[in-house]
Formats: sequence, structure tokens, C-alpha cells
Amino acid sequence: MYQSEFEIIRRYFAESGLYFDKSGVELGIGDDAALLQVPEDKLLALSMDILVESVHFPMSADPGLVANRALAVNLSDLAAMAAEPFCFTLGLVLPDNDEHWLQEFSQGLLPLARKYNCPLVGGDITRGPLSICIQVQGLCEKHHAVRRSGACVGDKIYVSGTLGDGAIALASLAQESHLGKSFAFISENISANCRQYFENAYYKPEPRIELARRTASLLSSGIDISDGLLGDLGHITQASGVGAKLSVNLLPFSASAICCMSEENRLLAALHGGDDYELCCTLPANNCAQFEEQARQADTPVTCIGEIVAGSGIVYVDEAGNSLSIEAASYQHF
Amino acid sequence: MYQSEFEIIRRYFAESGLYFDKSGVELGIGDDAALLQVPEDKLLALSMDILVESVHFPMSADPGLVANRALAVNLSDLAAMAAEPFCFTLGLVLPDNDEHWLQEFSQGLLPLARKYNCPLVGGDITRGPLSICIQVQGLCEKHHAVRRSGACVGDKIYVSGTLGDGAIALASLAQESHLGKSFAFISENISANCRQYFENAYYKPEPRIELARRTASLLSSGIDISDGLLGDLGHITQASGVGAKLSVNLLPFSASAICCMSEENRLLAALHGGDDYELCCTLPANNCAQFEEQARQADTPVTCIGEIVAGSGIVYVDEAGNSLSIEAASYQHF
Repeated sequence: MYQSEFEIIRRYFAESGLYFDKSGVELGIGDDAALLQVPEDKLLALSMDILVESVHFPMSADPGLVANRALAVNLSDLAAMAAEPFCFTLGLVLPDNDEHWLQEFSQGLLPLARKYNCPLVGGDITRGPLSICIQVQGLCEKHHAVRRSGACVGDKIYVSGTLGDGAIALASLAQESHLGKSFAFISENISANCRQYFENAYYKPEPRIELARRTASLLSSGIDISDGLLGDLGHITQASGVGAKLSVNLLPFSASAICCMSEENRLLAALHGGDDYELCCTLPANNCAQFEEQARQADTPVTCIGEIVAGSGIVYVDEAGNSLSIEAASYQHF
Repeated sequence: MYQSEFEIIRRYFAESGLYFDKSGVELGIGDDAALLQVPEDKLLALSMDILVESVHFPMSADPGLVANRALAVNLSDLAAMAAEPFCFTLGLVLPDNDEHWLQEFSQGLLPLARKYNCPLVGGDITRGPLSICIQVQGLCEKHHAVRRSGACVGDKIYVSGTLGDGAIALASLAQESHLGKSFAFISENISANCRQYFENAYYKPEPRIELARRTASLLSSGIDISDGLLGDLGHITQASGVGAKLSVNLLPFSASAICCMSEENRLLAALHGGDDYELCCTLPANNCAQFEEQARQADTPVTCIGEIVAGSGIVYVDEAGNSLSIEAASYQHF
């Protein structure tokens, strides 16, 4: 059935439950621009992430899962600034107007939009090769926006959740990996449970909004891990003018990662894999107990994986504190 | 030469002159999100527009011109709300990292970014089929945001500039037209001047920011003409619950449009063509003199083309005020 751009916007976006009332949203979908009232004591955080078919998800991917991931990875950037989600805009490039796809995609955005009280307020839709561009708007406390540049020598380095699952998930989805040919499952016969675990890890990363909100005032710096721990922690050390000592034996892995991947490949996935959307943050040692308690209350596992040191660059140490040498190359989008 | 995503961002965006200091931009390119301080007495306007290769511009198009158009059509949406440009974000999907293309594209964004004091503050860049997603952020006076819904019976309808040039330009660029096979130039031999005029009309539409800023308090409603006058004025009449009487003989055309197109095709281009990015607005008759004076000071031609009437829908009248019948279908993106 033929549907105009306006009909698509009305049916799948304006009237699908994605555009709901929210204090501060003065005008949403349906004019030349959305209008927001930003509280005077807050900063507005803006972040944009694009997902392209065959690059970020396979052609056959479930549209609902793709939608969930598209919004989740954007919300993860807000978490990395300790910003509370405010609203989002959506730029959709679609090869055709497939009612089923649009319906599933639109419904796939709903759970996170509702959970984080983050309505869709505008965007654009046009014809072309499938891609999804989302911009999230968030609100930060003026003095508690978590930047990359505040890490100090002696600060402890924490990550949320487990590492490497994003890259392992890509391999389980049979997408090309930049980690090389030796990056492979131990056995071809991955259990259905593990496969499901990785699919969830890829399409349903949990934005660490609650952890960030609770702990913003305790942190000296933070970033979300989208390009691999090494690359993203590297952004922190570079922006802060410091170095980092990483205790490789402390890196947290999921049971599925341990089950399906060799130790070497797990490490490769964590350090260089990308797509984990966990938080990596630094905090003064004095704040650690309070941070861990808040993480417990937010029901978010966190692990101390090292500390900030003088100098530059990242060094690895083993259990005994001895230096390790590991080759490096974080995820490059080109 | 191989360039990483971060190198591309640094070279062509962060350090290209596009990211400059601006009051209210607390943090720009280089963290998980940009941070804005929005003045308490203003509303933040958000608008997003996507341009896709082979849909919105030919594959061979000059990257600098494409960049200019991408930013211009977004700024036009801010003009339609009478919002002052604040900053923009850029989502770029690129098939490869062509240094020449990136250099020209980045430089092509500069003139409008500078002219409207609208720095680039963030975005995303990824691999895939070429498309450009821009979101502009603007600031509106709280009580003078121009919406689509305020038109009242008796209000006069004005447009800025000339109509139909966008659609005629597409034809001159040998892009497919949705206006049918009879939508063609009078002669194959369009003069170099006319060709240049249409290229400028397409790639360098002038966002009517200055006109909107000066006249916001005089207007009852406004929209920018991106889908053809009929479709866009239709959005105003629908949102306002009124009808409109359009004096077809008053529609303003450029000398090049008159020279290259039959009267019938000019009218088709104006009513159904799209891509003009002129303002269409309504205002009480009492405000017309002041509106025209402000337009003169803004050096922006404006033309009164009809008035708002009771009822719904749009009727056409000729010079003598008699009803005309013209077939209708505004630009559909699908």
C-alpha cells in the first residue's frame, strides 16, 4: 500500500506512542522544528549515532532489535556524560516503505523511550539505502557533567558490566570482524543460550543511565566503551594528560564469553573489540566504597580494573604486577 | 592514505574552522556529547534534514555545494520557526575516506556556519552509502516562535523570494522529476546564465533567517516551502483549521523560470515542486505595511499571494477573483 511521508510519520511515529507528553517539550513532531524548554540549572547534552545496514547490522536483522540498539547506543552516550535522557530525534533513510518493517521498528523504539521517559520529538524520513541516525538530547547537572578530561594520577579505573561481548556477538551474527581470522569461537557449536546471550548483548545493550546518575558527583572522568576498552580509555588518558595501568587479570567477562572464546580472543575482544556500551570511568580512591554501594543499589555490576598513573599511554600488568606486552589497535570505523 | 575516524573528525571537522567558540556552547566536538547552556528566556528549536546521494543530489555533485545545501535547508527550518541559529551536528555516512571529497565538503559548510554564527559541535561519521544528516539547534524568543497553527481568517499570505526554482533546478540537473514527462524546459538550449541561476537556487538557497528574526512578532503562522507551496500552505491551513484563497496570478517567479518554462509548468513547479526553501507565512492585514518594511530592510523580496478564509483546503482564484481548478499532488518523499 502506498503511504506518503506524512502518513508514515503519523502512523509509525507521531501516533505510535513514541511521541508522548513530557515536561520541557513545548512542541514535538509536526512543525518545522521541535521546541524545548531547558531548565536554567541544567546543561543540554547532544549526542548522535548512526547505524547503517550491512555495516552495523545484517540485512536480515529484526527491525525491532535494530531500533532498540539504535536508541540504546545513543542513550549510552548520555550515560557517559551522566545526563538524564530528555528526548530524541530520528533520521530514517529507507529503501521502500515496508509496513511490516516500519511497524516493528517503531515498536522496537518504544521500550527504551518509555523506560527512560525519552519521547521522539522530530526528525526526517527519506528514501535511500537503509540507515538510522538518532540524536539524543539529555540534561546534565551543571557541575556534574562527566567529561573525558578529569582523570587524575592515583584515580581508580572502573568498568560496568562485562567486556568483549559486543565483538563476540558480531562474530556470532556472522558479521565481518576487524579482529582477524584467528578471532573465532572455540567450537562451531555454540549453545542456543550463548547465541541468545550474544544477540541480546548486541541488540539490547543496557545504557548505564542509572549508574551514571547515581555516581556522577563521585567520578573524575567517564566514557562509554564503543570502540574497545583500549581506544576509549585512551581517549580519557589523552584528554586528561595522564597514563593508565590496566590489570589484565581483572577484566570482567561474561560466562558466555568464557565458554565460547579462548582467553586470548576474549582479551582481544575486550581491548580492541568495541560495541560493549559499558561505562569506563575514573574516581578518586576515597570515593570507591560509595561508588560500589551506589552501583549495587543500581543493580549494575562494576569492576575496578586498574588505576591512573603519571605519564601517557596504557600499560598492562599481570596478577603479580609485572608488565605485559599486548598488541594494539582499537576499532576504526574506516 | 588511510585515515581513522578520529583523524577525519580532527582534520576536516574539529580543526577545519567549523568548530568555533560560541557563547552557550560549553563543550563541543570531542566528548561523548556536546553540552549547551540554553538561556532561560529562550526555547531551543531542533530540526533535522537528511540528504541522500542519487536522491537529493547527483553522484557527481560538487561536495562543497552539497554541504552548503545540507546546512541551508536545515537553517531554513529554523527560519520557519523564527529561531536564531545556535549550533549544528553532522551525521556523515561515507563510502570511503576520499580526502578531496572531505576537504571540499568541510569547506562547503564553512560559509553558512560562519555567516549564521552556527558552529559544528558534534555528530557521527561512519562507513556506508553516502548520506548527510544535519541537525540544527536554534534559539527562539519564548513567545515569538512561529508555528504552523496560528493562521486566522482574514490574515494575508506572503511568500519570500520566488517559487518553483527548486523543482526547475532539479530538472536542469537532469534529476528525475515527480512532476511528470511534460515538465520540461521550453528549449534544450538553456543559457549558461539560467543554468547557473538554477544551480545556485538548488545548492545555495538563502535561509530566510534575517526576515524571520525581524518579523516574528508580526506573524500568525509560518512554514518553509520544502514540499511545494500547496503542500506546505496545506500544513498551515490544516494545523490552523482554516482555508486559503490563493491568487495564482500573484505567485512570484524568477526571470530564469519565466525564460525557461511554460506558464503551466512554472505553476506546477511552484505549487507541487518542492525544494524552494522560501518562507510562507500569514499575518493580520494590519501588520502588512510593517512586515513589508522589515522585509525591505532585510533585503528580502516578499509577495502577498492570497488570504486565509473560513473552511478548509486551498482554492485558487484568477486576477478577476474567479475560481480556478488546478490538479494537486505535493512532493512525496516516497
